[in-house]
Amino acid sequence: MTMSKPSAAVILIGDELLSGRTRDINLKQIADYLAPLGIPVKTCRIVGDEQADIVAAVNALRHQYTYVFTTGGIGPTHDDITADAIGAAFDVAVEEHPGAVEELGAYYKNLGRDFTMPRRRMTRVPVGASLIKNPVSVAPGFQTGNVFTLAGVPSIVRAMLEDVGHRLESGAVVHSVTVRGAGGQEGSIAIPLGELADQEDQVSLGSYPWFKSVDDHGVSLVARSTDKAALGRVEGKLVALFEALGIEASVLTGEEA
Amino acid sequence: MTMSKPSAAVILIGDELLSGRTRDINLKQIADYLAPLGIPVKTCRIVGDEQADIVAAVNALRHQYTYVFTTGGIGPTHDDITADAIGAAFDVAVEEHPGAVEELGAYYKNLGRDFTMPRRRMTRVPVGASLIKNPVSVAPGFQTGNVFTLAGVPSIVRAMLEDVGHRLESGAVVHSVTVRGAGGQEGSIAIPLGELADQEDQVSLGSYPWFKSVDDHGVSLVARSTDKAALGRVEGKLVALFEALGIEASVLTGEEA
Repeated sequence: MTMSKPSAAVILIGDELLSGRTRDINLKQIADYLAPLGIPVKTCRIVGDEQADIVAAVNALRHQYTYVFTTGGIGPTHDDITADAIGAAFDVAVEEHPGAVEELGAYYKNLGRDFTMPRRRMTRVPVGASLIKNPVSVAPGFQTGNVFTLAGVPSIVRAMLEDVGHRLESGAVVHSVTVRGAGGQEGSIAIPLGELADQEDQVSLGSYPWFKSVDDHGVSLVARSTDKAALGRVEGKLVALFEALGIEASVLTGEEA
Repeated sequence: MTMSKPSAAVILIGDELLSGRTRDINLKQIADYLAPLGIPVKTCRIVGDEQADIVAAVNALRHQYTYVFTTGGIGPTHDDITADAIGAAFDVAVEEHPGAVEELGAYYKNLGRDFTMPRRRMTRVPVGASLIKNPVSVAPGFQTGNVFTLAGVPSIVRAMLEDVGHRLESGAVVHSVTVRGAGGQEGSIAIPLGELADQEDQVSLGSYPWFKSVDDHGVSLVARSTDKAALGRVEGKLVALFEALGIEASVLTGEEA
């Protein structure tokens, strides 16, 4: 059965994201991965390495959205507390997963490295959780109910998503088109854009200005819809809207959720 | 009066952040700006252009943290709904601010552009709010109680923060030091690092692995503390920790909240 409107929430875990030390890329990676599946990311929370904060975010979101994705905090060090937090959120114990112990043990044996206690720690998952494969560095993610717990390192997140996609019920694919107007001003286009938004209720319209320099600024208008015909019609109207103001328009198309 | 432990929450507003179209930089900008003031960002939510979602986030966070910063949704177009959402969160009307009308009107007159209704829309703020100067494109942000509403365009956010800093009560400054161990493995350092974390309870220790390629990977250990002496001591211990494992260490210092 395909649910009519699947949705996703993302929880990014890590003090380094809040302190400004690290700029997140995982939200964008997850959204980009879910887009062609027709699963929009509807909200995101960024929390520090505090169990109570992680538990509160997981429990606030897992009942409200079809899927929840967490990133970060599943490595071997003392500040990696995500497995315990997910266990606490679901009120289940956290234990070594025999399959993970076997795989990770074999991996370190192969590398000629000791399978130390901290490394074994990465095999701990909430009881009942299923593993998510990590082809980069083997230590797995895990799925607990509708909550997918992924690594924090972006290359690993991207790889883990490949073992998540087939578990998801997809929704209607949302297509998008971006019409960029170089030199355009939001203040000049707001009225015709608002009228177009009223006329075309199957299409969501967003306006995003950019200001790189005096010579490089303008407005991108983004239209999104599950209805390709409506989107094609709106694309033409957006180009015409810019042209009526003497602004050169260029078009990009894509798919998103 | 200086509050002993000021804290901040950030709300990033915009469908484009959740769809993956745009990768946020404003959280990092705000955290970097607040760090030298000793005001840590403790949580962040990213919400779409939906009034109910913005209101819920503002009201959940403004009672819990000393300061709340919002970014995005204060431009002239139909999807710019942040002023109305903040008004709704505080249960006050949203009206044109005479000072903003005067400034923005003069700005467009100077540019020889019409002060259109959409442009006038950018002068609407919750009743009782004070303006936050925008030296980039004049349309102001605003402060409503402990909630600071900023633009979404990063260059404007950065500029607006200059008119926010003097309004904040600062806390104790947190210093940080990063010790990078090229080629290090989290699994090898987790035990001594955990022991160090137990010994040094004035210092917060985080471990952040990187994997750029087979030849470029390692672990960054980040220590944070308000106590510079403790931090200096821990810096030496972190370098020694890497050296004991035959890993070359390099040190970076900084300030953060």
